[in-house]
Amino acid sequence: MMTRVVALSGGVGGAKLALGLSDLVKGESLAIISNTADDFEHLGLLICPDIDTQLYTLSGKANSDQGWGLADESWRVMDALEALGGETWFRLGDMDLATHLWRRGAMAGGATLTEATRGLRRALNIQCDVLPMSNDPVRTIIQCEEGDLSFQHYFVRRRCEPAVRGVVFAGADCARPSDEALAALASPELEAIIICPSNPFVSIDPILHVGAYRRCFASSPAPVIAVSPIVGGRAIKGPAAKMMAELGFPVSPVTIARRYSDFIDCLVIDEADAESAPAVRALGVEAAVTRTVMTSRDDKRRLAQFVMDLAKGGDE
Amino acid sequence: MMTRVVALSGGVGGAKLALGLSDLVKGESLAIISNTADDFEHLGLLICPDIDTQLYTLSGKANSDQGWGLADESWRVMDALEALGGETWFRLGDMDLATHLWRRGAMAGGATLTEATRGLRRALNIQCDVLPMSNDPVRTIIQCEEGDLSFQHYFVRRRCEPAVRGVVFAGADCARPSDEALAALASPELEAIIICPSNPFVSIDPILHVGAYRRCFASSPAPVIAVSPIVGGRAIKGPAAKMMAELGFPVSPVTIARRYSDFIDCLVIDEADAESAPAVRALGVEAAVTRTVMTSRDDKRRLAQFVMDLAKGGDE
Repeated sequence: MMTRVVALSGGVGGAKLALGLSDLVKGESLAIISNTADDFEHLGLLICPDIDTQLYTLSGKANSDQGWGLADESWRVMDALEALGGETWFRLGDMDLATHLWRRGAMAGGATLTEATRGLRRALNIQCDVLPMSNDPVRTIIQCEEGDLSFQHYFVRRRCEPAVRGVVFAGADCARPSDEALAALASPELEAIIICPSNPFVSIDPILHVGAYRRCFASSPAPVIAVSPIVGGRAIKGPAAKMMAELGFPVSPVTIARRYSDFIDCLVIDEADAESAPAVRALGVEAAVTRTVMTSRDDKRRLAQFVMDLAKGGDE
Repeated sequence: MMTRVVALSGGVGGAKLALGLSDLVKGESLAIISNTADDFEHLGLLICPDIDTQLYTLSGKANSDQGWGLADESWRVMDALEALGGETWFRLGDMDLATHLWRRGAMAGGATLTEATRGLRRALNIQCDVLPMSNDPVRTIIQCEEGDLSFQHYFVRRRCEPAVRGVVFAGADCARPSDEALAALASPELEAIIICPSNPFVSIDPILHVGAYRRCFASSPAPVIAVSPIVGGRAIKGPAAKMMAELGFPVSPVTIARRYSDFIDCLVIDEADAESAPAVRALGVEAAVTRTVMTSRDDKRRLAQFVMDLAKGGDE
């Protein structure tokens, strides 16, 4: 089945739109390229938070109240690890651990991260494709006043508290996009490349730093449409707004438009930011205004439909 | 605290005597050198079945009905892994997994297997020392008619069914005894070296194949006393008797005495095998007869006391 839509995504916010898109674009016509720069090795396991958030969201198993992990999760292993005085700052639920063990087992048997991810998504009965941005390790380093922190130390252990001075992606220079992701982007039936409402600094930027992705998006004949993760001066989820301010940028969709202006055709902004539309357009980026906050499944499907309509409009 | 007693042990049978010894020889005066040749890498984790059986037995957490693993264990992770179609032939309980994750975390931080094991036994409030035979990987390969099987594939996955033609210890040529184990054996206060009633082919032989252990036992001024794992033509637990027959040896304590005759002073045999005593003595090995089957804690302590009394007698 030829890829019709490629969506780039980080974790929770991006996965919401990806779920909406999966309602409209069936089967492997939809390919989600997932950030892997917040992956890390922990207790001998490879943890892939963004891929797993995609898998859990798309399979309907995500814990939507908590915003991460699985619904109906249990914590037997963590409790026992705590009793041993082990490292428990990164909470690995029992069912979540099964995912990491499955992945480790597949990769120990020679599978690439892409192959392992496909195996997992098939085991979870997910119809669309979920593709790691690269099979090569890329790791986000958050540069703080107190020194460099690996992403999960910043994000989970330090709860995003340290002020961010810069972000670098270790390994990005050598990492290559996976063949599968490049094939999806080269599909002759490609109708849209969608940048989900994910953190620009730590979810989308890593993808843009790997190989020829950025040029590939810029030169694609398909329209490239981003959805702003910044709504009314805030991020719906995660540290995007805080990081934006600490890095010296206005907390506004205009900052998103400026960062992506070389490769996107259109930025979808929330009704709360309607007054930013002229500034976005001044950057040579079309601005489309709608309600972008996704609470219900209907919200997700409606925003996905809005973006797909924009893509079709762009063809006309 | 100087080592007074060194005990060599494999899994369940050996751990029973080790527990009895720990009632008599307090604190780090007792050092247990544990076989590591049935360790294996599984799902990204280092699994050390014999070390963990020691740790669980000595901490009172072992599942004595089942004969392996922890009491009050749960199987949330295995159930989830099974739902993903993952590898579940080696049953890792939730609490047991915490041990493996703890170990992996410690070793990822630079700890040797010996240091990780000491950390675990302290976390479990175990007073005696538990020392891996080596920090270097040694892996038992069971040579069967159908080909070579790694130990856990033979032992767990194939339930010891294939007939054994030979046993080799991959890595033993290059592996060195740990400094800590050698220090325990060199203790000027050493009163006894005890070979617990463990499988001679896959629990004790690996230790004997690493570095200078065998010569070290033979030349020790302390008496070396083995307890036969063969009782009345059977092994209390595990495939020792079956392997012994398949490898062409009589299933008898005499076979044990013959294998160990160059380095042991005395073999403890069960009352059921009293008639073997002359044949053992004919090999130049003292034979001591007592009840060796350990069911209760008292049985363990009594057999430990018997062995310690022999060691003292040997000094006189």
